[in-house]
Amino acid sequence: MKAVVIGSGNVATHLCKALKSAQINVVQVWSQQLQNAEKLANEINAEAINDLSQVNVDADFCIISVKDDAVETIANQLQPFKGIVVHTAGAVSIDIFKPLFKHYGVLYPLQTFSKGKALDFKEVPLCIEAGDEQTLKKIEQLAQLLSRNVYPVDTEKRKILHLAAVFACNFTNHLYALSQDILAEHQLPFDIIKPLIVETAEKVQHNLPRDVQTGPAIRHDEQTLARHRALLANQPHLLNIYQTLTESIKKTN
Amino acid sequence: MKAVVIGSGNVATHLCKALKSAQINVVQVWSQQLQNAEKLANEINAEAINDLSQVNVDADFCIISVKDDAVETIANQLQPFKGIVVHTAGAVSIDIFKPLFKHYGVLYPLQTFSKGKALDFKEVPLCIEAGDEQTLKKIEQLAQLLSRNVYPVDTEKRKILHLAAVFACNFTNHLYALSQDILAEHQLPFDIIKPLIVETAEKVQHNLPRDVQTGPAIRHDEQTLARHRALLANQPHLLNIYQTLTESIKKTN
Repeated sequence: MKAVVIGSGNVATHLCKALKSAQINVVQVWSQQLQNAEKLANEINAEAINDLSQVNVDADFCIISVKDDAVETIANQLQPFKGIVVHTAGAVSIDIFKPLFKHYGVLYPLQTFSKGKALDFKEVPLCIEAGDEQTLKKIEQLAQLLSRNVYPVDTEKRKILHLAAVFACNFTNHLYALSQDILAEHQLPFDIIKPLIVETAEKVQHNLPRDVQTGPAIRHDEQTLARHRALLANQPHLLNIYQTLTESIKKTN
Repeated sequence: MKAVVIGSGNVATHLCKALKSAQINVVQVWSQQLQNAEKLANEINAEAINDLSQVNVDADFCIISVKDDAVETIANQLQPFKGIVVHTAGAVSIDIFKPLFKHYGVLYPLQTFSKGKALDFKEVPLCIEAGDEQTLKKIEQLAQLLSRNVYPVDTEKRKILHLAAVFACNFTNHLYALSQDILAEHQLPFDIIKPLIVETAEKVQHNLPRDVQTGPAIRHDEQTLARHRALLANQPHLLNIYQTLTESIKKTN
């Protein structure tokens, strides 16, 4: 099996490595910056390109793995591709491919990827969708080579998953960052809070988050909430987030 | 070594088990509801009491592990205790003990505890503080029997740690809950998002959160952000949180 990967960001990088591990031949990596394409292509013995007209249209898959806003623009610039074109975006409809390609679909990995952090791609949930049944089967075959967790998910549900992922991952990581800011401002090491972060994530693997909510807001510890607000009095930005989430915890439980 | 534990909540429960594992004799467990005291006391062969005047004042430690707002009230009702009195609260000053006891301090476990979820107490960061040096040494000895991670931390810094923990744990868990709400509303299983939650926590064990932030806000994927706002248009409560955290990610990066 041959694939072309369009993109060289976090998702494209992890995907290329997973494709290689699954012994799928990534023949080309495209990036707007040739240098970025080369860096990734070199790791997996692929050709680096920065011109979409050079895409090998005979490959089995063309995987568009760029930021959501750019998927449609890129797709419009692709030559008629004979194989299957998929994108990896959570929030982009499959329908953008309809006027452009014969065989198309989506391969959305529901995970957070950073270039410097290795992970087991076999455990990544892959959400797949296709323009027709036969294409879905082919995408499913590809997906199952990459991961143990393959889910057929239509565009509407995929968008919901992506939204839920923003809450569970992107916002969560941002709260870690704010927590680190608070610690750093008082010369406290981020290390001390790391076991708490892991345990918080571990707890919801076997419990519903609502059932294991802890902290002053859920206990209605009003004195502690007031003390925290006082500590944040000079940081209106943090205070606003503190209040918004505290009220939300109180309201929804 | 003998200890009395005041409280039967999440922290008290995990602490009692850790004390028992460390072969420290928990002689009594107090709870306002005798039934709650009995439930916990039975697990560790302790006496259950619901009257503070019955506390064994000859024990080495009296550990007050109740919700923050109740610590002072409980302390005021304790008989003159000969050993060391500590509380386990993140946001309560050590000074409340000054007019009441000769030997006092704090033993604050920086972790999230739920009764139904086991954890390795040896890995829990324990923040200790005392009214005098000799008491600090004794609390340190106790703490080191319970955990590998013991940190001397004064009240001011402990309050900051507690605040940082609210962001990194309590707020984070609430975001998991909101994420689960969004999924449930569309008949999607929470299971599908669990690997993402674990990976998000794992990533910051060896990276600064700011360096591994992902998602549409940090990428300034305006189309995706607009799509998400549209999905939340009928849920002003979730939309408000979405906007607040999205703006915060954009602002601080």
